[in-house]
Amino acid sequence: MELNFAKRMSFLKASEIREILKVTEREDVISFAGGLPAPELFPVAEIREMCRIVLDEAGTKALQYTTTEGYAPLREWIARRMNERLGTAFDRDDVLITHGSQQGLDLTGKVFLDEGDVVLCESPTYLAAISAFRAYGCRFIEIPTDGNGMLPDALEDALRATENVKLIYVIPTFQNPTGRTWSLERRRKLAELSARYGVAVVEDNPYGELRFEGEHLPSVKSFDTAGNVLCTGSFSKIFCPGFRIGWIAGDKDIIRRYVLVKQGTDLQCNTFAQMVLAEYLKRYDIDRHIEKIVEVYKRRRDVAVESMERYFPDRIEFTRPEGGLFTWIELPEGISARRILDDCLKQKIAFVPGGSFYPNVHRENTFRLNYSNMPEDRIEKGLRVLGEVVKAHLRESE
Amino acid sequence: MELNFAKRMSFLKASEIREILKVTEREDVISFAGGLPAPELFPVAEIREMCRIVLDEAGTKALQYTTTEGYAPLREWIARRMNERLGTAFDRDDVLITHGSQQGLDLTGKVFLDEGDVVLCESPTYLAAISAFRAYGCRFIEIPTDGNGMLPDALEDALRATENVKLIYVIPTFQNPTGRTWSLERRRKLAELSARYGVAVVEDNPYGELRFEGEHLPSVKSFDTAGNVLCTGSFSKIFCPGFRIGWIAGDKDIIRRYVLVKQGTDLQCNTFAQMVLAEYLKRYDIDRHIEKIVEVYKRRRDVAVESMERYFPDRIEFTRPEGGLFTWIELPEGISARRILDDCLKQKIAFVPGGSFYPNVHRENTFRLNYSNMPEDRIEKGLRVLGEVVKAHLRESE
Repeated sequence: MELNFAKRMSFLKASEIREILKVTEREDVISFAGGLPAPELFPVAEIREMCRIVLDEAGTKALQYTTTEGYAPLREWIARRMNERLGTAFDRDDVLITHGSQQGLDLTGKVFLDEGDVVLCESPTYLAAISAFRAYGCRFIEIPTDGNGMLPDALEDALRATENVKLIYVIPTFQNPTGRTWSLERRRKLAELSARYGVAVVEDNPYGELRFEGEHLPSVKSFDTAGNVLCTGSFSKIFCPGFRIGWIAGDKDIIRRYVLVKQGTDLQCNTFAQMVLAEYLKRYDIDRHIEKIVEVYKRRRDVAVESMERYFPDRIEFTRPEGGLFTWIELPEGISARRILDDCLKQKIAFVPGGSFYPNVHRENTFRLNYSNMPEDRIEKGLRVLGEVVKAHLRESE
Repeated sequence: MELNFAKRMSFLKASEIREILKVTEREDVISFAGGLPAPELFPVAEIREMCRIVLDEAGTKALQYTTTEGYAPLREWIARRMNERLGTAFDRDDVLITHGSQQGLDLTGKVFLDEGDVVLCESPTYLAAISAFRAYGCRFIEIPTDGNGMLPDALEDALRATENVKLIYVIPTFQNPTGRTWSLERRRKLAELSARYGVAVVEDNPYGELRFEGEHLPSVKSFDTAGNVLCTGSFSKIFCPGFRIGWIAGDKDIIRRYVLVKQGTDLQCNTFAQMVLAEYLKRYDIDRHIEKIVEVYKRRRDVAVESMERYFPDRIEFTRPEGGLFTWIELPEGISARRILDDCLKQKIAFVPGGSFYPNVHRENTFRLNYSNMPEDRIEKGLRVLGEVVKAHLRESE
C-alpha cells in the first residue's frame, strides 16, 4: 500500500530561490538571485578568536543543552538593541532566540494559525513567509501597497470584511522583495488597526540595520499599545547567516507560547553559536562592523541603480532602496520574467522572477534583484546583459 | 480586542522535563532528570581545533548559507555509518540533516499528519515526540509493550481497526523512557506490518551507539521492503548536544518532501556546526570516543542498578538497560511518583515522573531515572535517599 501524506504536501512547493541557487553555485554565474550577504565581510578572524575563548572558558557549557528561551546575555543584548534602535521597551524575557528569523515565522504559524485562517500580507511579500504560514493551512489576502507601505483603507476593508483574520505580516523596512520602506504614518496606522481589530502583527525586520541614507525609523511595535505586535530579527545580514541565529520579541505572555511550541519543534538553538555570538557582541563594536557592510552595499546599490538607469529601457520601473539587499523591477503587462530568466541563464545571469512573491495570483511581469553578493564590475556587467535581454523581450512583444 | 491563538495552543503544555531542569540547574541538586550527556566527555579540545581549521580553510563558506539538505560530506558519513551499523542501504541523498533529531520528529508531523490522524506509539513513549506530533492535531493510540517491544498482535489489531493511522513511532533501542530494547523478531514483524498496512514508521534512534554489552541489532529499516521506514539519529549523545545536529534518513522520494517542509521551517541547519562536525569525523576516530563514553555510562548504569537493588524495596520493578541513558521504575498502583518527587526535591534529588510519557491516560506510579550525567558516588547517594522516600510512601499507602 502507498503511504498517505498530510494534505499540506499537495500545495507546498519547492522554493524557487533555493532551486535557482543550486544552478548559480558555479563561480562563472553572475547571480542577482538569493539574498546572500557578501561573504568577504564576514568577521572570520573574530569568530575564530571567539570560538577559542568560549571553548577555553566555558567549553562544556557551550556544548551542552541549554534552555529553550536561549542564552540570556544574547537575549539581553537584543532587547537593549531593539529599544535603542526601534523605540521598543523590551526586556530579556520578551525575547526568544530562534533558528534564524525564518523559524520565527514558522513558530508564528504554529502559535496562531488553524486551517482556513487568514493572513493579510503585502503584495508582493517574502516568499518563504508564504511557505512558512501556508504549511498551517491558511489563506492569504494580499493588501495593495505603494511606496509608503500597505494602503490603510484597503487594510481596514479587509479586516472589516474578513472572518478569521489571525495575522498581518509585514516587512516595513527595506522590504523583501521590493526594497521599499513604510512611512512613519503608515506604521502608526498599522499598530492602531491591529489594536482595534485584535489581530496580531508580525513585523519582520532582517534588513533594518543596513540603512545607506536617511534616519532609522521607529518600528510598528513602538506604536503598539495593545501588545499585539511581534518583532522578528536576525544576525544573518549583520554577522553571518551560517550560524542561524535570529529572534522573535513580543509581550511575555505571547512569547511564552512560542517557547512552548519551540520545545516540541527542536528543543533549543545551538548553544555554542549563541555563546560565540554573545562573546563577539561583548568584545567588538558591531556598529563599526555594520558600517563596513553598509559602505560596501551602498556602493553596490549605487552601481545597480546607475546600471539600470543606463541599460534598462526608460519605461521600466524599479525601486531605489534606501537600504537592504534588494531592488524590484516591474515590466509592462504581458512580459514574462520567467522567460527573461531562461534567456539570461544561457548567458550566465540569474535573478528571481517575481511571480512566487505573490501568494495568490502571480504577477509574472516582475522580478527581484539582489545586489549584495557581487563586486561592482560584475553587477554592472550583469545588468548590461540583463538590460539587453529585457529590451529584446519588449521588442518581441510589440 | 483579545488575540486568538491556534487551537493547538489549548492542548500543548510545557515539557515537564524542561521545567524540572530549570529547578535542577543548582550544583547541589542530584539530578536523575533530563537526558543530559556527561559534559566532561565532550571533545572540547578537538572541537576547538576543528573550529580553527574550518575557519582557516573555508571560513566564508562555513559562515554562509548552504543547502537545505545539509553539508554533503556529513550526509555521506551518516549514510555509511548507518549502513555499517544498522544494516541499511542509504546513500547521501537519503539523508537530511536536521536541527537535532527532535526536528526530525517535528518535520515528520508536518509531512504526514492532518488534524484527526492517528499515531501509534509505544506505551510509554518519548514525551517530546508526543509534543512534536500533537502540534499537528493527531490522536495517539498506545500499543502495549513488554521487554521485547510492542506486542505485534495488539499493533495489528490497532492497524486493522483504526482509520487514518499515518505513523507508527518507535524507539527500538534503549528506549526513552524505559531503557528497553526490541528483539530482532519484533523489529522484523513491525517492518512487515508497516508494509502490509501502508503506514510509515519512524524509527527513532538517539541512543543506539551507546551499547554497554551484547551485540548491535539490525534496525527495523533493515527489514523494510516497502520503503516505509524513516530513521532518525543524533550526534547529541556521541558528540555534543549543543551543536543541535541530527538527521532523518529514508527513501529519497519521502526525504524530498522533508526537504520541502524544512525550507519553510528554518531554511537549513547551522553551516559552521555541520562543517566542524564533519571535520572532526574525518580527523578523529569517533569509535574510540564512543568507547570512552560507553565505559563511563556502563559504570554509572552498574552503580544505578546495584543501588536500586540495595535501597529499593523488593517489590519495585525497574529496567536493567543494556545501553543508553535511562532506567524506568514501576511502583505499585496507587503510589504517586509526583508526590515522591515533591518529597525528593526537598532533599535535593530530582527525576521525571512517568505520567507525561503516556499521551492518553497517565500512569502516575512510574518514573524515569537518568544515570549519565552524574558521578558514581552521587548516583549511589541519590538512590539511597530516593529509596527511603519510596519506602516511606509505600508504608503510608498500606
